[in-house]
Formats: sequence, C-alpha cells, structure tokens
Amino acid sequence: MIIRILKAEGLAHNTYFLASGEEAVVIDPRREPADLRECLDLARESGAVIRYIFETHRNEDFVHGSLELQKATGATIYHGAGLPFKYGQPLQDGDRISFGKLSLLALETPGHTPESLIYVLYDQKYPDEPIAAFTGDALFVNSTGRIDLPGEAEKQVNAAKLYDSIHSKILSLGDQVVLYPAHGAGSVCGSGMGDRDWSTIGYEKRTNPHLKLSRDEFITYKVNEKFVRPPYFLKMEDYNLNGPPSLDSRSSPMPMGVQAFDEALRRKNAEVVDIRLPQAFGGGHIPGSYNIWLGGMALFPGWMFDYKTELLLVPYEDEDAWTADRFLCRIGFDKVPGYLSGGFEKWQNAAMPVEFTGQLPVDALKPLMDTSDIKLVDVREPREWQSGVVPGAILRFVGYLKADLPDVPRDRPVAVMCSVGHRGSLGASILQKAGFTQVYNVPGGFTAWRAKDYPVKPAR
Amino acid sequence: MIIRILKAEGLAHNTYFLASGEEAVVIDPRREPADLRECLDLARESGAVIRYIFETHRNEDFVHGSLELQKATGATIYHGAGLPFKYGQPLQDGDRISFGKLSLLALETPGHTPESLIYVLYDQKYPDEPIAAFTGDALFVNSTGRIDLPGEAEKQVNAAKLYDSIHSKILSLGDQVVLYPAHGAGSVCGSGMGDRDWSTIGYEKRTNPHLKLSRDEFITYKVNEKFVRPPYFLKMEDYNLNGPPSLDSRSSPMPMGVQAFDEALRRKNAEVVDIRLPQAFGGGHIPGSYNIWLGGMALFPGWMFDYKTELLLVPYEDEDAWTADRFLCRIGFDKVPGYLSGGFEKWQNAAMPVEFTGQLPVDALKPLMDTSDIKLVDVREPREWQSGVVPGAILRFVGYLKADLPDVPRDRPVAVMCSVGHRGSLGASILQKAGFTQVYNVPGGFTAWRAKDYPVKPAR
Amino acid sequence: MIIRILKAEGLAHNTYFLASGEEAVVIDPRREPADLRECLDLARESGAVIRYIFETHRNEDFVHGSLELQKATGATIYHGAGLPFKYGQPLQDGDRISFGKLSLLALETPGHTPESLIYVLYDQKYPDEPIAAFTGDALFVNSTGRIDLPGEAEKQVNAAKLYDSIHSKILSLGDQVVLYPAHGAGSVCGSGMGDRDWSTIGYEKRTNPHLKLSRDEFITYKVNEKFVRPPYFLKMEDYNLNGPPSLDSRSSPMPMGVQAFDEALRRKNAEVVDIRLPQAFGGGHIPGSYNIWLGGMALFPGWMFDYKTELLLVPYEDEDAWTADRFLCRIGFDKVPGYLSGGFEKWQNAAMPVEFTGQLPVDALKPLMDTSDIKLVDVREPREWQSGVVPGAILRFVGYLKADLPDVPRDRPVAVMCSVGHRGSLGASILQKAGFTQVYNVPGGFTAWRAKDYPVKPAR
Amino acid sequence: MIIRILKAEGLAHNTYFLASGEEAVVIDPRREPADLRECLDLARESGAVIRYIFETHRNEDFVHGSLELQKATGATIYHGAGLPFKYGQPLQDGDRISFGKLSLLALETPGHTPESLIYVLYDQKYPDEPIAAFTGDALFVNSTGRIDLPGEAEKQVNAAKLYDSIHSKILSLGDQVVLYPAHGAGSVCGSGMGDRDWSTIGYEKRTNPHLKLSRDEFITYKVNEKFVRPPYFLKMEDYNLNGPPSLDSRSSPMPMGVQAFDEALRRKNAEVVDIRLPQAFGGGHIPGSYNIWLGGMALFPGWMFDYKTELLLVPYEDEDAWTADRFLCRIGFDKVPGYLSGGFEKWQNAAMPVEFTGQLPVDALKPLMDTSDIKLVDVREPREWQSGVVPGAILRFVGYLKADLPDVPRDRPVAVMCSVGHRGSLGASILQKAGFTQVYNVPGGFTAWRAKDYPVKPAR
Repeated sequence: MIIRILKAEGLAHNTYFLASGEEAVVIDPRREPADLRECLDLARESGAVIRYIFETHRNEDFVHGSLELQKATGATIYHGAGLPFKYGQPLQDGDRISFGKLSLLALETPGHTPESLIYVLYDQKYPDEPIAAFTGDALFVNSTGRIDLPGEAEKQVNAAKLYDSIHSKILSLGDQVVLYPAHGAGSVCGSGMGDRDWSTIGYEKRTNPHLKLSRDEFITYKVNEKFVRPPYFLKMEDYNLNGPPSLDSRSSPMPMGVQAFDEALRRKNAEVVDIRLPQAFGGGHIPGSYNIWLGGMALFPGWMFDYKTELLLVPYEDEDAWTADRFLCRIGFDKVPGYLSGGFEKWQNAAMPVEFTGQLPVDALKPLMDTSDIKLVDVREPREWQSGVVPGAILRFVGYLKADLPDVPRDRPVAVMCSVGHRGSLGASILQKAGFTQVYNVPGGFTAWRAKDYPVKPAR
Repeated sequence: MIIRILKAEGLAHNTYFLASGEEAVVIDPRREPADLRECLDLARESGAVIRYIFETHRNEDFVHGSLELQKATGATIYHGAGLPFKYGQPLQDGDRISFGKLSLLALETPGHTPESLIYVLYDQKYPDEPIAAFTGDALFVNSTGRIDLPGEAEKQVNAAKLYDSIHSKILSLGDQVVLYPAHGAGSVCGSGMGDRDWSTIGYEKRTNPHLKLSRDEFITYKVNEKFVRPPYFLKMEDYNLNGPPSLDSRSSPMPMGVQAFDEALRRKNAEVVDIRLPQAFGGGHIPGSYNIWLGGMALFPGWMFDYKTELLLVPYEDEDAWTADRFLCRIGFDKVPGYLSGGFEKWQNAAMPVEFTGQLPVDALKPLMDTSDIKLVDVREPREWQSGVVPGAILRFVGYLKADLPDVPRDRPVAVMCSVGHRGSLGASILQKAGFTQVYNVPGGFTAWRAKDYPVKPAR
Repeated sequence: MIIRILKAEGLAHNTYFLASGEEAVVIDPRREPADLRECLDLARESGAVIRYIFETHRNEDFVHGSLELQKATGATIYHGAGLPFKYGQPLQDGDRISFGKLSLLALETPGHTPESLIYVLYDQKYPDEPIAAFTGDALFVNSTGRIDLPGEAEKQVNAAKLYDSIHSKILSLGDQVVLYPAHGAGSVCGSGMGDRDWSTIGYEKRTNPHLKLSRDEFITYKVNEKFVRPPYFLKMEDYNLNGPPSLDSRSSPMPMGVQAFDEALRRKNAEVVDIRLPQAFGGGHIPGSYNIWLGGMALFPGWMFDYKTELLLVPYEDEDAWTADRFLCRIGFDKVPGYLSGGFEKWQNAAMPVEFTGQLPVDALKPLMDTSDIKLVDVREPREWQSGVVPGAILRFVGYLKADLPDVPRDRPVAVMCSVGHRGSLGASILQKAGFTQVYNVPGGFTAWRAKDYPVKPAR
Repeated sequence: MIIRILKAEGLAHNTYFLASGEEAVVIDPRREPADLRECLDLARESGAVIRYIFETHRNEDFVHGSLELQKATGATIYHGAGLPFKYGQPLQDGDRISFGKLSLLALETPGHTPESLIYVLYDQKYPDEPIAAFTGDALFVNSTGRIDLPGEAEKQVNAAKLYDSIHSKILSLGDQVVLYPAHGAGSVCGSGMGDRDWSTIGYEKRTNPHLKLSRDEFITYKVNEKFVRPPYFLKMEDYNLNGPPSLDSRSSPMPMGVQAFDEALRRKNAEVVDIRLPQAFGGGHIPGSYNIWLGGMALFPGWMFDYKTELLLVPYEDEDAWTADRFLCRIGFDKVPGYLSGGFEKWQNAAMPVEFTGQLPVDALKPLMDTSDIKLVDVREPREWQSGVVPGAILRFVGYLKADLPDVPRDRPVAVMCSVGHRGSLGASILQKAGFTQVYNVPGGFTAWRAKDYPVKPAR
C-alpha cells in the first residue's frame, strides 16, 4: 500500500495518490502538466494502473486535472451528486469503491460546498475499521473549511451543515483515523491551518479550536470569519463544473530577449509581472510592471488580471519563470507568451528605462507616521486586521486596491504595508502604475512593526 | 514541521528525519553513504541543522550511522541507558528533548532488547497531547518485535516485558497517536508486518492480532514464535555497542573486466556472488558462484560469509552492483573489491567456463516426487513450514544448508524449494558448490505448488 | 554557442541541438516524447527559442520528430529538395540559414539518398571559415553511408554520387572542420563506424579506409558491401515523407498483472516479446514468446512484426519496459498495450506454464559438431560471415529466419549462433515458436568460438 | 571512447574525463566534492577505473583536486618536471601514457608557466595521427594564455617561450587536431576567449588573432596585455605545488536563523557576503556586508578576503549559498560557517537594521556628471579601460578599491561603474563599509552608457 502526497506550493493544496497491488487512484488531481506527470510516474513506479479519480468537491482555487488524467489513463471520475457536473459519475453517501486490497467509502459532508464528499479508506480485510479519511475542505489540521463561498445569504445554513458533517460524519469515525485534508497552512480555503500535512481525528478533537465549540458557537464563529473572495474563483467554478480547456492548446512561455520582450509588452492586453522579491523589484524594474513575488503567483494573478490578459514575466533567474508558469496553469491562466530571459539585468544593460520602488523599514516609517508626513495603506486581509493595525493607516486589501484608490492621497508620500512586505510591494506597484510617484513598500511589514513594539490599535 | 521516512529496501528499515523551524533530528540513522547524504540533504533543504540523533535500541540487522552523522553535524547522540554504549548519551524514562516547536519524550520499553526506547512526539504548545510515537522494534504495524535475541533462556521474561511495555507505555498514549515503527513488511525483526509504513495506536488495537491476546496468551505466542538468528547479528551488536569502523576507509567496488575479475576470484578469501535473478543464474553463471538475488543482498551475505571474505559481484547490469554494495555496507561488509562490469555476458563472450542450474517448475517436479526420482529440499524458515510442507521434503533453512548437508543424497537429482524461488536458487548454488551435480531450483517455489493445489502436509 | 548531441542508444543515432544567443536549431529530431522534451528543455535552459529544424535526409531507421517539434515550437522545417515531402521547406545547394551569431550552409550530397543534405556551421564573423559539418549519413567516423537503399539497380550510380559528394563537397571544406555524423558505431546505416561521436575531416582523410580508395575502388567497394534491409524501412520512408501519426494518440504501455497479461496475450495480433538477456530467457520464459534483448528493441521488432501487431513486453525489471517502449516509439510501433509488471517471476509464482531455452557454450558445441549430432544455424548478417563461419553451419540471417525455415532439420538438436548470443537467442525463440523442440542458443557465439581457436572456414 | 567536459561556471575552467575500455583518466581535476563525485560517477557509468590524473600545469585560479581523486581511486598523478611538486610523477617531453585503446603524449609547452605541458590524444591504432590536444593555458579558443604570472621581469622571455611552444609544438600537430583548452570565455587566465568549448588547430590558425602575429608582434602584444593578479593566486600556487588541505576537515555551511547569523557576524574575522544581484542588494541589505553576486563568487572573494576570514553568506534563496560554497571551495576558502537561511527577508521581518545602496541608471547619471554633482569611480580592469572610459571618472579596479581610497571624495555623492553593474555594486558596498554615505551603483554600467551613445574618451 502506497500513499503519496503531491503538494502544490503556494496553493498549499494536496493531491493524493494511493496504490494497492495493481490498482491506483488519485484524489483531487490538478490540471498542470508536471503534476499530472507525477501521478503517472507514481503509478508506473508502483506497477499500478490508475483506475479511479476522486474529487472531494468542486474546488474554487485551482483547476481540476481529472479530465486530463482521465484522457491519459481511461480512469473513471467520481464526485458528489449535488452539482450538475458535465463529466464524471456521481457518488451517493455510503458508496464504496474498491481497488487492490483497499476501498474508499464516500460520505456526503456539505458545508464548504453543497456537494462535498469525504473519502474514508479501508483495508478490505477490516471493512468496519477506517484507516484514514481524505477530508477535502471540510476538516483541516487545526481548522475547518470556509463556508462563505456558496453565498453570503447562506452562511448560517452552511455553517450548520458543516458542523453536522464534521461531528456526525467525520469525528464519529473514531480517534484512531488518520486525517488527510486537501489543504495545509497557507491556503485561501480556510485560516489557521497547522503546518503538518496530516493529523488524526483524536488529535484534532483534543487540539483543533474549531472542534471545541458548541454547535451554536461554531455557527457564530464561522459566520463571522472574514474571508476575501478572489474574482477568479468564478472562473474556477465554471471550469470545474463544466470541464476546463485542454492542456493541448496551452503553450509554455518562451524565453525572450530585451527587444522581443519590449515589443510584447506593448501589445494590447499585455501586462508585465515581475516575479522577483520586493528588494529586487525595489532596486530596479520595468516601468509599469506589477510585482507579484514567486510564491504569490499561485494566487494573486487571479486578483489582478482577467483571463484575456497576456502575462509577461520578469524572473530573478529563468527557472523562476517556469515555476511561475506552473502556478499560473493551476489557476487557469493559459496566456503566458514569454519571460525576460536572463532576468531584469538584461533590460538595464540595454539602457532601457528603469523605475524604482522605495523601501521604508519600520524604524524609518515610525517618525514619519508620527508627523503625518506619510500616508500608510495596510493591504492585508480584513481577517489579519483583527489582530491590530497601525494607527492612522488606510485599510484596503491589496486585491481591491487596483479598483479602489480614491482616498489614497496623491500629495504626500505613501507607504504600503502588509504582513512581511510581499503584498506591500504588489500594492506599491499598483500605486506606481496608477501614477503615484512617492510610493514605498514597508519591508518586514506589520511583523517588523510588531517586533519593534510600535503602537497598534484595534482594527475598528 | 517535516517528517520524512528514509526506507531501506531489503532491510525494510525506516530511518526518520524530523525538522521544525531551524532544528532537525534523525531517528535510527544507518551507516551507508547515500543514506547519510539523504539526511544531510533533507536538513539543508529544510533550512535546519541536525541537532540530535536518537537510537531506539541497539539494532542487530544493520550498522548504526549515528557516529558518522555526528561527525558530519556535531549532533548529540541519545540512546537507552540499559547497555554500556561506548558513545552517545543515555536517556532515562521520561526525558524530553526539544527541537524547534516540537519535543520528543523517551519511554523505556524493554522486551525486544533490554535498553529499548520509544520516542513520543509532541507539539510544545500541547505538551500533554502526543502526536506520534516512534516505536522502534517494540510495536509494528500488525505485529510486535521478536523477543528471542537477548537469549533463549530469557524469552519468557522478555515476552512479559514486551507485553508490559506495549500495554502500559505505548497503548496508553491514546488511540489518536500515529505509529511509526522501525521496520515494515519483510524485516527479520518480526513477522507478519503490514505493508503500510505507519498506523495509529487505535487502529492497531482494533486489528493487530498480537494486541488481542491476554498477557499469558501473548507470552506463550511470543515464546513459540520461530525465528532464525543470522550469525552476522553478533557483529552488528558489537559494532552498534562499541562503534563501527569508519566509512572513510571503505572503498566502493571497482568495475572489472573479465581478466581482472578472473584473477580476483582466485584470491584466497574471495567468493563470487551472482546477484541476478534465478532465471538468469540458471541460464549461465561462473562456476562456483553463489546466487543471492539483489533484494536478498540486504540479508543473506550475513548468513553465507564471514567479514574477512572479499565479495566479487556479478550483476545483471552495473548499477545493480552499486545497489548491492549499499546493502552490503549497511550490514557491515566492507570488503567488496569489484564487480564484473558489463555483467555475465562479458564472461561468456570470452569463452570462460560456464555452469548452469536447472529450473524445475512444480508441474515437472510433481511426477518426479510421486516416483521418488528426485529429492526435494525445502530451504524456507521453520516459521514458514508451519503453514505446510511438501510431503517427503527435507526441511533445512537455507542459512544452515552450507554447514549441514549430510542427509542430502548425492545419488539422485535434488530440487531446492523456497517460497518463490530466490532462496531456492541460493540453496541450489550452495549444493553445486559442494559438488552436487544434478541440482534444480523450483521456480515459483511453494507459492506455485500451492497454486496448483498439489498435496501439502503439516510440518511435523 | 552550445552544441549538444542527443544520442539514441540502440539506434546509434545522433540528434544535434545548437544554440546561439536567443535562437536555437535542431538537426534530425526523433519522434519520441523524451527525445523531444530533451530538445525543449535544452532550449529553455539555453534561454533560446527553437527557430529551425533541419533534416539531413529522409531517414529509414527511425521516425522523424520534426512535425512534433514544430507543433511545440512553431519552428520552420528544412530538408532536401529532391523528394516530394508533404511538409517543411526545401533547401537548395548553397542556401544559408542564420540563427544567433551562427549560420548553417546546406550542401547537396546525394548518394545515400537522392535528396541528402549536409549542413556546414559558420560563425557569421568568419563567413568563409567552416567550423563543423553535420554530415548525416554521407560520411561517418571511419566509414561512409550505405548506398543500397534507393534500389539494387542504382547501387553503381549511387556509389559514384556518394564518392563525388564526399570528395567535392565535404573533404574540400578543409582538414580543420569538425565532423558530426548522424550515426555512430552500431547503426544499421553503415558498417565499421568508429566509437567516437565526432572527428575532423583531416583526421578522417588520414585514417578512414573508405577515403583512401580511388573513385573506382570506392564504387566497387560500396557496390559489394553486404547489407540487410529490414522490412520496416518502407514504413519509415512512408512516415518520413508524408508525416508520421501524431504522438497524441499513442499511449504508454500499462503495467499488467499475471491475469491481465495472460488475457492480453491471447488476443489476435498480440505477441509476447521477452526483453531480458538470453541467460534469463533461457532459464524460464512464457511459452511462445520471442526473445529480443533490450538493446535489440531499437531494431529487431521491425524485422519480426508488422505494424498491426500488439506487443506485450516481459522485462527483467519494469523500467526496462519503459526503455523498450521508447525504442519502439522511435521506429513507429505505437501498439504496446502493456508489460508484465514485476517481470517473469510474477508469472512463475502463479504456476503458469514455463518454457526453457538451452544454452550450449562453444566447448560443449564443438564435440557435437564434430559428430554431427547437432545442426548449427548461424543467424548473423552476410557481412559478418565474410570474416569466417563454423564449418557445417546453415547460414541464415535472423531477420529471415521466421519466414525461411525449410532446411532446418527437425529430427536433431539445433543450435543457433550469432556474434555473442543475443540474436542467437532470438533465433532460438523463433524456432521454438515454430515447433522445434531441441533448440539451443550458443552463449558467446562466434566471438567465443574464435576465442577458443576452433576451426573456421571462409563463408563461401 | 568517451570524452566529457566538466565545466566550472564562474571559473570557466574545464576538467576533462576520458575513458576507453576499462580505463579512464582525468585531466586537471578540481578540489571540490561535487566535481570529484562527478568524475567518479562518470567512471562508474563508463565501467572504467580512473588510472591516471594529468595536470597541464600548476594552476593559479583554483585548487587542484588531484590528491583527493588519487585518494579515492589510487590513480597515478602526472605533471610537468619543471617545478618541485611535492606529489605526483614528472613527465618529460615525449612521454606517452596508454589507457584502453588510447594514449596521451606529453609535450612541454612553457610560457604561461615554466612547467606547462599539453597532452595529445592518439588512438593506439594510429600512433602518428593526433586526434586532439588538451592545451591547458597555452592555447585557447580565439586567444592565448597570459604570460605575466611568473613575474613582470620575465614577461618578454615567457612571451617568446609561449610563441615557440604554440608554433613548434601545437600548431605543428596539424589542422585536423581538435583543441580542448583548460579555459573558456570568462576566465582570468586569458582574455577574449571564444564562447565555444573546443576548436581545431586549423580553425584557430584561420581565425585566432594571436596566431596571425609574427614572433616579434606576438611578444610585444603579450608583454603589453594588461592583467590584474589577485592576491589569492599566491595561495593557489602554494596549495598546488605542495598539496592543499584535505577536504575531510572542511564542513559545509549551515543554515542559520536571524539570531544565529547575527551572533556569527559579530565574531572577529567574520565578514558578511551578500551573494544576491545588485538590484536586490540595493533594495535592502545587512549593514556592513559586501555584495558579490553569485557568479563572482568564483573569483572576487580571493580579492577581498584572506584565508583566515569566516565568510557568512546572504543568499536570494538557500541553494544559491550551496552553489557559492562550491565556488569558495574551488578557490580554497574553507571557512564558511553558514548562511542566512530563508534569505534577507528573514532579517527584515525581524526588524533588524537595513541599509540600502542607490541605483543610478546612466540617464540619471549623465546630467549629474555634466554638472560635476557626482564623482564616478570606474572599477573595471585596466584592460577594459582600453576601449574607453567616461570623462572625469576615477579609474580604480575593484580589487584594489578596498586598500586604495584616498582620492575618492567624501563630500559628494559617488557613483561606481563597471561593465554591467556587478562589480559596481561590490565597489559601492566597499565604499559604504568604509563610511561613505552617498553611494550609488550604476546598473547596466559602461554597457548601458555605450548603448546611450554618451561621451567616451580614451583611457589615457
């Protein structure tokens, strides 16, 4: 028996590969060539054939790879019956699918989405003794799935459903059952996840704060959880319900020289995304480019760009562009014509125009805040503001900044802050692109501010 | 938090690497260059420094890598207090060592060996809630550790100790605790291990047959378990108590041409070990060579050769010799001058002498058994005979065959059988080397015999 | 400037990747996924885009990858003007294509095929100083290309053309020019190739025996060269003229258990190919299977099977099946449903029927030949017989054996010999499949026979 | 026959591995663990044993790996007779060493160093026809070796010796001989090297400008070549004559957290080296650190630090520190205790002090130069100044800047320029460390200045 976790950095998503004897299954595959090849390689190395593909639910944060994997293997796709999927087969609560010496039992666990399933793993020799549960976005290590996605109006109902799913379907499996969730720390599908890939039901019952709440407390807590909902989730929902575009027609980005890159960025619908860290972006970048650090490419393009935009990448070194393209592929961005090969240095050596973004550490920011010589914009998520904000800061999540700038003053220097400085630099690049001229990122962000014991006030 | 299992194929041994923040620890490292490098690479990739090395007990089936890893990292070595180790620090029951945000609690669990420890993993945030237990050779998935090693006379006492260790120290940790044993299926340190790398205490309580026995039943069961004890265990015990020879003075085997190989095999103390599968060995080999299939190289050299012997390898392809050398290194064989580069074909192309070993499938064996025209030697372990043997077979475990041949008749063809044909071919090669001329291996062995529903009788 | 040789083991074919600045080209790509991926990876790592694909000629021994590579890159395909290719652009003698700081000059060099081109590499800074020549199948290290392929009747004419191509077009480039041929030692597109990947024109002029002949001597020599022409060459010519089937519809072979394999081999059009070495095949195989050692899979399937046959593989270990499938893909075999996962041992453990092939070393063969108690079939190529044959042997190249058996006696043991024993085992398996019962392969073959100084006579 | 080039990025040095049959040799191995492992792996994969190690000369720019490779293989080391090496065997002009089917002929070619040898490769079958020449630092692609190293006083004599070595020993081998030099473009052992790894003697005769000079012209040209001589060359000469320290006592750098790094940098003899690109360094770095970009770590530590200094690295991502350590190992720096794991961001998140370096693109520099509001320091090599300098610039090679600052004004902003901005940033960091407060690097450097057609004047 083989269980392998295929982690997606950035997304913090886990695909699971299971093999027993000559048969294998995959849970929640992603539509990205290297991810899919890894599934096929694991099967080959296990001497097994992928027979079934299980989806825990219609994901909103990445594109399902089920159809691509089916094309390569002929496997049957299964998912919940509660949505009108245009592909695959529905499973009902209690359905059990066998492979090798194992079986997976599907249990309906609505709450995060209406058609969510979890899959419980059994050795066929002990059909009443669950080994592990693949809990999708219902139960995480140290947390639970968000319930706001089906709609604001239904939050109360969905929180109650999730409570019941967790308590009646999952926890009742027994303390000894290993927990394999779909997401780890860093995912946007929940908050406060632990940094382990797995847990057990018993350990979660003892330590997961969400599981210590009464039904009413849980509902109240979940209804009040603050999440942002990226615009690209709608695209993912469409793709994952109706089937995404084939990867056959997707091409990898090409290495470009300065001239080719300069021509490409002048095209309508083209945007330059600088995927270097903020220090490097600050020390010189192509005017008009956005700064999304590499790890953020798993998520923030979905906030910043529509799916018609051609994305041109500026990497620190070429392979970072290849990684960024994997991230973009996972969230459905298929128009990535190329990247500046050799990185930003090639640009500056050709004496092309260069722009800078100031970096203002907290000890330099503090006196300017005291004298109001600068305006601070805190671009963290509402959820993060709950632990306190810098007095006087404008609060505007970076995902909304591009569309919502009116109250940011143009007559004064502006500093942008997030938790450590990544989203801050994205925010600063948005402001620079919008014509602001005295813009700073705050390196270290709120983390550094805290480390200095500078004043903090409650968010509201 | 990172937990990685470093598996040793053949040995079925698990080394564990754990990292949290900037600190890492290794449990039960092995003295083999690639194994050690993997530990160091994992640390480097985790951004962590290996601070501690934990030994669950003095192993008998491989050489500890603790001293080599200490040399590379400066880490502190810990082990049980019950043996006079010449290196490392003793831990008492209840000692707790912290690293990063985690800690490991040592618990004394004698039975398999007197100084056995298990290590229980905690998040420092929840110091009373165990996450996982590294149970060494005390509790396995679906089985428990053997208790015969400290000596025949003490089996009763040690079985009782193991029962108490498991029930009072391990099972009491709670159903929710994940179980990480030192061995998986295929190890010689127990029998009947499951084919999963991990389990939970709760799942084991429900399914592990050893845990369903009363104290008395358990003692009786363990005392009657039949194990063979390879002669090299003594060497391992010496090495692991007093410190093994340094790897600095060990050289990797050299590729050899036919002439160099032919010269080398004539040296006193040299033996040729053909590491190909039995079919290939049967279809042609160097006269006088032993046949130990690649997977068996993790164990059977310890039965066949003393530590002064120079081992010369004949691989199917060169990289198999490199793998075999890793296996040999793990069990302390440091004299492996070379291998026949290009494999056996190079030998036959030079018109060097060739010997064959007949392969006698069960449907050809059956009528010869019926007419007594052949003598069958069953070289499986006593434990395996318990499920039945072929009527008329001589029962002699392959590890004892070299020394104990008198009742094998020389006037008739002899067939050698094991479970599938690997050890059978080793047995056949032993007989050929001893001058027997009509020797056959039984491909498929007892497994194929069973598949044909041929007659089987109880062992005694 | 980057030049990389992508070698195909077995085929002994060289694809060339060249990059300069931001542009790259590929010469003679092969239609095999891993080969193509290697081209794309090299381009990516070089920061270059593949702009052009050059074909030296319509190859007969593998499928061109030009169209697949074009699909992935948009590159332009170039080849000779002398054949009505259904894809790509024709180049005339003297055409020069630039990329980065380099250029390639096309020169028409008919002889091996009518439309053969060589490509001469220049630094644009020195447009009159050739650096290297990619000579396709015209000039090899230590040899020259075969001239029999366009037809027996035209051999005289083509030999003359090749002489003129070499002497007037290639050698005149100057001693200092590096030579990069399309094939190395082991290719079927010539004989006697040296074991270096490259040479220089000057070194070849000094050492290549073909270049020391006068025009008349050369023509006589080439006309008398003995080559066999595999039936699959026709398919390759068709594919390479009109475009081969897309790789999109080709699936990789699946790992199969014993039952699935047993069902598959009973299908009409299915054949079992055992890709293990002859010793292993001899020591046990599935009845009715052909034995083609792994290295031979680059060639001999084209002699043995038509393109409708489903090939089922029996590997020594699983990854050998994956390698064999790469070889099959290169020569256009796209129906490879699966392989016996875990190898032949799985079969014998299930007590399935097993067949053997005797191995008769030369010292055992010799006395039997002396007494005519055995018939020997020499299955080497006619070209190899020129250096002598065993007196009394039937001479029949293995590629013709399946179709041409009448004079092989069925009343006596038959031994099959080739140069070392690989093709001998294929020949033996053909005879066994044809109902011969006393069949032996001669391990070491004619090489071992020679090593023993046993009698040899001229072929005719 | 196998020839493999093992390139060292940064150093632009080529080690050569050659194998024939069962024997292999290595030419000019480097003392770095991964380089040595690559030699051993190549041998193993070739089925060959490394018998001989050849040194072309006592190198000045890296540490020889001959003794380490000898320790691992038992191979014999050969080098020139003209220096009192404390290890290895001397070869005389005309000595020939055979391995497999090949041989290497040693020819004395003094000029670069007194004991320089080249090695000429022959197939034993054609003992009078050289295949290739390994020319060390005598003849490069498009250039020749520097002759200033044995001493200023002997330049005239050594230039003459080199001319004679090249013309009488190397060029006379014949146009057809392939040329394999010890260095490619970017090495400090010559200038103007071509970007190919190999050439032929004939091609060099036609295109290498050094070979078109008469003896007198050549001597004049070489005597006037301007090279800088790094202080670490003395250490390398000592190591390579007497044997370097063993790698056994060298440890790899450890990943460090902010606190550990902060403690380490306060130690006497410790220096912080920031190995990020100048943009990233400019956008924030640890105060007092030097900026040597990753590629420059193969060389510039030897200019900046003595061998007692402990080097602490700040990488962009951890693996860059591992690469930098390989570079340091090659030039004999063995004290590299650790690196800031997670990179500079970890530092800023902890609110530790941050320093910046301004980046002043050429279009911003130009008007400031016009008004003398800034002082420009050109830190390129004297050789580079020959193609022109910016009017008004102070000329001071970066290697001398640390020791020679008096004329750099402290009352005005200072900009530092090199060819593209790498050494400029090192220069700027030297000035900042020396207490200069208004310091700028010029991104794009003289290359960008040229691209803008800004005024340039002759160096002197």
